[in-house]
Amino acid sequence: MSGGTVVLAYSGGLDTSCILVWLKEQGYDVITYLANIGQDEDFEAARKKAESLGAKKVFIEDLRAEFVEEFIWPSVQANAIYEDRYLLGTSIARPCIARRQVQIAKQEGAQYVSHGATGKGNDQIRFELTCYALYPEVKIIAPWRIPEFYNRFRGRKDLMEYAEVSKCPNPSCTVGYCSPISLLLILINHAPSDLFLMTKSPEDSPNVPDMVEIKFNKGVPVMVTHLKEGTTKTTPLDIFSYLNELGGKHGVGRIDIVENRFIGMKSRGIYETPGGTILYHAHLDIETFTMDREVRRIKQDLGIKFSELLYNGFWYSPECKFLRHCIAKSQENVEGKVQLSVFKGHVYILGRESPGSLYNEELVSMDVQGDYDPCDASGFIKINAVRLREHHRMEREAQLKQ
Amino acid sequence: MSGGTVVLAYSGGLDTSCILVWLKEQGYDVITYLANIGQDEDFEAARKKAESLGAKKVFIEDLRAEFVEEFIWPSVQANAIYEDRYLLGTSIARPCIARRQVQIAKQEGAQYVSHGATGKGNDQIRFELTCYALYPEVKIIAPWRIPEFYNRFRGRKDLMEYAEVSKCPNPSCTVGYCSPISLLLILINHAPSDLFLMTKSPEDSPNVPDMVEIKFNKGVPVMVTHLKEGTTKTTPLDIFSYLNELGGKHGVGRIDIVENRFIGMKSRGIYETPGGTILYHAHLDIETFTMDREVRRIKQDLGIKFSELLYNGFWYSPECKFLRHCIAKSQENVEGKVQLSVFKGHVYILGRESPGSLYNEELVSMDVQGDYDPCDASGFIKINAVRLREHHRMEREAQLKQ
Amino acid sequence: MSGGTVVLAYSGGLDTSCILVWLKEQGYDVITYLANIGQDEDFEAARKKAESLGAKKVFIEDLRAEFVEEFIWPSVQANAIYEDRYLLGTSIARPCIARRQVQIAKQEGAQYVSHGATGKGNDQIRFELTCYALYPEVKIIAPWRIPEFYNRFRGRKDLMEYAEVSKCPNPSCTVGYCSPISLLLILINHAPSDLFLMTKSPEDSPNVPDMVEIKFNKGVPVMVTHLKEGTTKTTPLDIFSYLNELGGKHGVGRIDIVENRFIGMKSRGIYETPGGTILYHAHLDIETFTMDREVRRIKQDLGIKFSELLYNGFWYSPECKFLRHCIAKSQENVEGKVQLSVFKGHVYILGRESPGSLYNEELVSMDVQGDYDPCDASGFIKINAVRLREHHRMEREAQLKQ
Amino acid sequence: MSGGTVVLAYSGGLDTSCILVWLKEQGYDVITYLANIGQDEDFEAARKKAESLGAKKVFIEDLRAEFVEEFIWPSVQANAIYEDRYLLGTSIARPCIARRQVQIAKQEGAQYVSHGATGKGNDQIRFELTCYALYPEVKIIAPWRIPEFYNRFRGRKDLMEYAEVSKCPNPSCTVGYCSPISLLLILINHAPSDLFLMTKSPEDSPNVPDMVEIKFNKGVPVMVTHLKEGTTKTTPLDIFSYLNELGGKHGVGRIDIVENRFIGMKSRGIYETPGGTILYHAHLDIETFTMDREVRRIKQDLGIKFSELLYNGFWYSPECKFLRHCIAKSQENVEGKVQLSVFKGHVYILGRESPGSLYNEELVSMDVQGDYDPCDASGFIKINAVRLREHHRMEREAQLKQ
Repeated sequence: MSGGTVVLAYSGGLDTSCILVWLKEQGYDVITYLANIGQDEDFEAARKKAESLGAKKVFIEDLRAEFVEEFIWPSVQANAIYEDRYLLGTSIARPCIARRQVQIAKQEGAQYVSHGATGKGNDQIRFELTCYALYPEVKIIAPWRIPEFYNRFRGRKDLMEYAEVSKCPNPSCTVGYCSPISLLLILINHAPSDLFLMTKSPEDSPNVPDMVEIKFNKGVPVMVTHLKEGTTKTTPLDIFSYLNELGGKHGVGRIDIVENRFIGMKSRGIYETPGGTILYHAHLDIETFTMDREVRRIKQDLGIKFSELLYNGFWYSPECKFLRHCIAKSQENVEGKVQLSVFKGHVYILGRESPGSLYNEELVSMDVQGDYDPCDASGFIKINAVRLREHHRMEREAQLKQ
Repeated sequence: MSGGTVVLAYSGGLDTSCILVWLKEQGYDVITYLANIGQDEDFEAARKKAESLGAKKVFIEDLRAEFVEEFIWPSVQANAIYEDRYLLGTSIARPCIARRQVQIAKQEGAQYVSHGATGKGNDQIRFELTCYALYPEVKIIAPWRIPEFYNRFRGRKDLMEYAEVSKCPNPSCTVGYCSPISLLLILINHAPSDLFLMTKSPEDSPNVPDMVEIKFNKGVPVMVTHLKEGTTKTTPLDIFSYLNELGGKHGVGRIDIVENRFIGMKSRGIYETPGGTILYHAHLDIETFTMDREVRRIKQDLGIKFSELLYNGFWYSPECKFLRHCIAKSQENVEGKVQLSVFKGHVYILGRESPGSLYNEELVSMDVQGDYDPCDASGFIKINAVRLREHHRMEREAQLKQ
Repeated sequence: MSGGTVVLAYSGGLDTSCILVWLKEQGYDVITYLANIGQDEDFEAARKKAESLGAKKVFIEDLRAEFVEEFIWPSVQANAIYEDRYLLGTSIARPCIARRQVQIAKQEGAQYVSHGATGKGNDQIRFELTCYALYPEVKIIAPWRIPEFYNRFRGRKDLMEYAEVSKCPNPSCTVGYCSPISLLLILINHAPSDLFLMTKSPEDSPNVPDMVEIKFNKGVPVMVTHLKEGTTKTTPLDIFSYLNELGGKHGVGRIDIVENRFIGMKSRGIYETPGGTILYHAHLDIETFTMDREVRRIKQDLGIKFSELLYNGFWYSPECKFLRHCIAKSQENVEGKVQLSVFKGHVYILGRESPGSLYNEELVSMDVQGDYDPCDASGFIKINAVRLREHHRMEREAQLKQ
Repeated sequence: MSGGTVVLAYSGGLDTSCILVWLKEQGYDVITYLANIGQDEDFEAARKKAESLGAKKVFIEDLRAEFVEEFIWPSVQANAIYEDRYLLGTSIARPCIARRQVQIAKQEGAQYVSHGATGKGNDQIRFELTCYALYPEVKIIAPWRIPEFYNRFRGRKDLMEYAEVSKCPNPSCTVGYCSPISLLLILINHAPSDLFLMTKSPEDSPNVPDMVEIKFNKGVPVMVTHLKEGTTKTTPLDIFSYLNELGGKHGVGRIDIVENRFIGMKSRGIYETPGGTILYHAHLDIETFTMDREVRRIKQDLGIKFSELLYNGFWYSPECKFLRHCIAKSQENVEGKVQLSVFKGHVYILGRESPGSLYNEELVSMDVQGDYDPCDASGFIKINAVRLREHHRMEREAQLKQ
C-alpha cells in the first residue's frame, strides 16, 4: 500500500539515488524527474539507474530552449547581478526546473515533490517557493531537513554504503551545466583550477582574441556573428550555447566570491558563467546607448530588486512578475549591435551602433554648436548652485554664532 | 587699470594658454594655478610658459596626497561607479583641484576664477559647483561659454594662430594622470590602442600574473604587498601609485562606454583606471566578507547615489557630505586582507581573510550542524510562501469567475 | 510687419493682460489661450478683455474632463504626494494646460509661446519643459525673466499704471480651481482664513459628518455614492467635482507647508485640495487591501519618484511615461469599495470590501488554524535571527579582544 | 526538580496567567515580568495575581522614560510610518520590553523566556528577534505555537475554565497604553467607537482648538508650550504624555487600516496614536524647514526602510543600528519651533521658525531679486530639456520609419 506518490528531482548522482531508495523505503511511489538545462550528462544512463532503483516512472525533460528564452533572457534584460558580482546562473535555473516538476506532479496526481538540496542552502528555498507558488497544496519532502534522514547519512561514506546495499550502480558525481561549482574551501585558499568545467584557465587560453557582434532587439540577443569567421547564430538556445562556448574557450566569467545567503549566512561561491558574462557586458552597453538616462536609473533599481528576488527564490511571486513586466517595458527601444572581443578572461566592448540611439553626434560634438547654446549651461550651473550657496551661508552663520 | 584678478586653472596646454592671454586682453590680472594630481607633466616648463605669457603669479600645487586620501579613498569605500561601469576618475579630481583654486583666490583676493572646460561637458559643472559651494560670491569666467571667445576660436587652428601671435611657446598637448582619454570617435570605430597612456594593451602585457595582497582597515587600503617579490607600500599615495603601475603593466581598467552626461547628452568615453579597478574589486570583496547583508544592501543604494553626485559635480553639497558620513560609518568593520592576481587586463580575487568576518565556517559547513537546525528552514520557507499561495488562490478565483 | 506669432497663456488677470499688451508692443501677433480646468472664472469676460487688448485670436478651452482623466487619475493611482505632504494640485495642471497651448501653437503656425509665471517659481519649469518636450523647436518668451520687462514692472503698481494706459479693463485677481493659494507670509504668521477659496474653515463646517462610498476599478474611482442621500456620480469629472464640493464643505485638505522648489529654494505654500485629499486616503486604503505587500513596496518607491517628476515639471519625459506605465500595471487588481466619512477637516476610513482582495479572513483569524501551521513561525523567526546572532557573536568577540 | 527557569512577559491578563500556570505544570520555575510603558494598569494587583499563581519572583519595571527617549524619539526623527499610515506604536514598544526581559533573564540565570503572543501575528517576531539578538543562547517558549498548548486552549472558554481550576483571580482584560486595539472585524463593518481607550470621538471633542508650540532640537522635541494656558513640559516623558493627553482630548490619531504583516497575511488594524500623530506632523514640518532638499530625499528613503524594520521586529539588527545612526546624523540642524492646533481629530500646522533655517526670505521673495538672476532659470530649463527634446526627436524618427 502506497503512502502516496512523490515526484523526485533526480540528478542521477549519489544523493538523489539514495533519496530515491529511501523514499521507497518510507512507503512512497517514486517518479523521478531529470531536467536537461544544458549540463553535460548521460541522460540514458541516468534513466536506467533510476529504473533499476525502482522508480515507478522516469521523466527526462529537455528544458534548454525554455530555460534560455523564459528565464535567462529576462535576466539579461535586467542586467541581473547579485551583490554586484554574481550572475545568478543557478538561481535562475531552479524555478525553470521546479515549474516542470510541479506540472508533472499535477499531471501524475502526485501529492508530493522531493529534492536533494541541503538544509542550509539557497536552492531548497528557490525550489520550494516555486512549488508552493504554482501548486499551493503540494507537500514537500526535503530529506536533508528530516532528522531521520540526515542523522542516518552523516557523510558521503554513509551514502556510499547505503547505495551499495541498495545495489545502486555506482553513481558518478555529476555537476550541471549552469550549476556553479559552489564549494567551501578555507577562505584564504585559492581555488584549484581543475574545479572549473566550462572555462579554460586564462593562462592556457588562446593568445588571440575572438571578436563577435551581438545584435539585440527589445533588450534580448537575436543574433551573434563571429566577425572573422562569419559564424552566425540566431535562435536563443544557439546564441547562448555559442557564447558559452566562446567565453569558455577564453576563460571568461570565473569568479570567487563570498555571498550572503537568504538564510542569513555568508558562504563562499566559485562560479563560472562564460556566456552570461559576455551578455551582461554587451547588454549593459547597448542599453546605456539606447535608453534615456532617467529611465535607466529607475530601471537600475528595479534590476537590483529583481536580482535579489531571483537569488532568494521568488521568481514566481507577484512582485517578480511585476518587475519582469516593468523591465521588459523599459527594453522596447533597446536595439542595435554591440561589437566586442573576448580575450584571456576579459570582455572588451569595442563599439556599438543602433538605429534608435539617443546618441546625437552633432549635439555632443565639440566643434558644432548645433541646437545647443553653451550659455544655457551657465544658468543651469548657477541654479544648481542656489542650494549649495544657501547651505554655505547657513554654515557660515552657524559658525559666527559660536 | 585692472578689471580684477582671475585665478585660472592652467594646464600648460594650448587652450588654457590662449585663455590666459585672452583674459589679459580683456583687462584682467591673471594668476595661473596648476594642480599636480599625479599626471605626467613638466611642471617647471608649464611655470615658465605661464610666466612668459604674462601671468602675474604662478601656483603649482602638489595635491597628490590629499587627492588620494580625501577624494579617492571615500570613493573606494563607496564602491563608486557611474552607470555600472565608469570609475569616476576625472569626476573625483575636479573638486580636489577646484577647492585649492578657490583657496588661492580667497588668499590672493581674486574675485574671479576661470577654467578651460568646454560648454557641453561635465567638468565645467564639477568645477563650478565646487567654486560656488566654497566661495559663493566668486564670479566664474568660462570662456568656452562666452560667445566672444568661442566664436573667435572655432577650432584648434584658430587657437594655434592666436598662440603664435601671442608668442606662446608651442604648447604640448598634456593629458593628466587620472584624467581619462575622453574622445569622440565615430561610435562603431574601435578605439586605437595608442590612445592609452597608463595601461599596456593586454595583448602585449606579461604572460605571467602578479599576485598582491591588499590590507584594508575601515574600508580603505592600508598596505599592499607583492606576494612574490615582497614589495610593500603603506602610505595612501604609495599604495595608489603602486596599484596604478601594476594595473597599467597588465592592461587593467580600460573601458569604452557610452555615458549619460549631466546636461542630458550621451557621449562616448574611453577611460583607463588601472589602480582604481584593482581597488574596486578588492574592496567589494572585503566589504561583502565583513559587512552584514542588510547593511550592505542599504549602503549599496547610498553608494549609487554618491556616484551620481560625484559624476554630476556635487562633491561639496550637503547631501554628498551626508552620504560620505554614512558610508564611512558603514566601513567601521571593513578590515582584512584580500589576495588577488592581475593578468591580461583582468583582476582575479583569490581569497580573503579578516579578524572580524561574519563568515562562520562551522555555521555554513555542510557536515556540521552547529547551532543551526535545518528544520527551521522548513518553517522559514513555508512562511515566505504564505503570500505566494494567497496570490495563487486569488488568481485561481479570478479565473474561475471569468 | 509682425515679429512672429505668440500663443500666450492668458488668465485674464493683471499680469498676463500687461504681457499681452507688452508683447504686441514688441511687435508680435498675440493669440491668447485660456484653459478651463475648473476654476471659478468669467470666461466670456476674459475673452472680451483679451479682444479689447488686441489679441489676434482668442482660445478658451474646456480641459476639465481630460484634466481629471489623463492627469489627476494617474496621480491618484500613484498616491502622488510631494515631500510627504503636498498633493501636487498645481503641478499636475501645468502639463495639461501647456499641452493644449502647444497644440494651438502648432495649428496656428506660431513659433512662440509665452506665459506669466515668475522667474523664481516651479510653474515656469513645468510649463516650459512640457513645451520643449512636445514642440522642441518652439521659442519661449517668459517676460518675468526678461530684464527689459521685469525692470520696467517692479511691482503691482507699475503693472496697474501700464494697464490703465493700455486701457485694460480693470483686471480682477483670478485664482484657478486647483491652483493653490501659494503666498509668502512671514513664516511664523498663521494663514488668515479668508485665504481659502474652496474649503470652509473646519470651525465653521457642519457638525455632522457626511459618509460616502467610493468604488474603484483599476485604481481609479468609477463611482461615488453618498451613503445617506443616495446621490451617485459616475463620470470622472462629476466624481471629482462632487468630492471637491464635499471636501470643501467639511474643510478637508488645507495645508500650510514649507516646500523645496526645483530651483533650490525653500518656499512656504498654503494649499487646499479637498477632493484630492479624500481620494488620496481612499485610494491608499483600497490599494493596500488588494495589492500584494511587495508589489506595494516597489510601487511606493515608483510613486515617490513620480511625484518628484510631477513637481519638477517632467510629466512629458521618458521616465515619467515609463513610471505611469508601471504604476498603471500595478493597479490592475485595485478594485473595490471604500467607505469613509468627512468631518471637520478630516477624512476617516470606515471600511472596505473587494471581490479580489488578498485579505483572507480564515487565514488571519485567531481562532481558526486554517492552512497555517503556527509552528512554521518558529522556524521563520529562527532563520531570520541567524544573521542577528552572528552579529552579536562578532561584537562579543570584538569586545573580548579589546 | 525544575526543568529550568523561565522569564515570562506577564500582562496580568487571562492568557499570560494561564501560561504562567501551564509553564509551572510543565516543570519550569517561572519569573514574571511586567513592563510599565505607560498603560493604564493596576500593577500591584498584577503582582499579587502573579504571586498567587506561583511565580517564583515578580518584576514590575517602569520603562516609560527609556521607552520615550530611546525608542519613540528615534522614530520621531525618522518620521517612522508603516505603509504610509501606521505610526508603529506597538512595534516600537516590543524591543523596549524584550530588552529588559532579556536583562532579567541573564541576571537571574534563566535559560528561557516566554510570552503570550499569538502564532500569526507580528509581536511574536518583534519579541523573539530582540531576544535572539541580545541573548543568542536563549530558548524561547511560545505556547501559542506549541500544539500541546494551542490544541488544549482553543478559545477564551478553555482559558477561563483553566483559570478557574488554577484558582486564578479572575483576570481583567488589560490593554496597554501604546498597544493598539488591533481587532478583527468583518472588514466592511465600521469600528465601534467604544473601542478606543485614549482618544475621544471627534464628534464629542471640544469645539475650540488647542494651540501648542513644540520646540525641537536635533530632531527631537525638547519643550512643548500651550500657547494660551502657558503650560510647559520639558522632559521627554512629560512632553510625550502631555501630547498624548492633548491629542486624546481632541480625537487625534485614530486610524482604521488594512496592513501587511511580516508573515505575509493582510490584517485589519484599528489604532489610536494621539501624541505620535501630533509629533509626526510637527517633525515633518520642522525637518522640511531646516533640512536641505536632497538630504531630505535620501533620509526619506532611510526612514521608510527604518519603518519596515521596526514593523518586522528588527530594531536590534545591524542595519537598524546603522540607519539610526544615519538618521540621527541627518537631524543635527533640525531645530526650531512649530506652532500647531489640534481640533476635531486633525492637526493643523500654523507656522514655524528656526535659527538655522535654510528658508531665505529675500531669496524667495517675488519683489526682491537679491542674489538671484531670473535669466539663469532659462538656461536651467533649457538644459533640463535637452534630454526631452532628444527623446522627442527619436520618437519622431521612429514614427517616420513606420
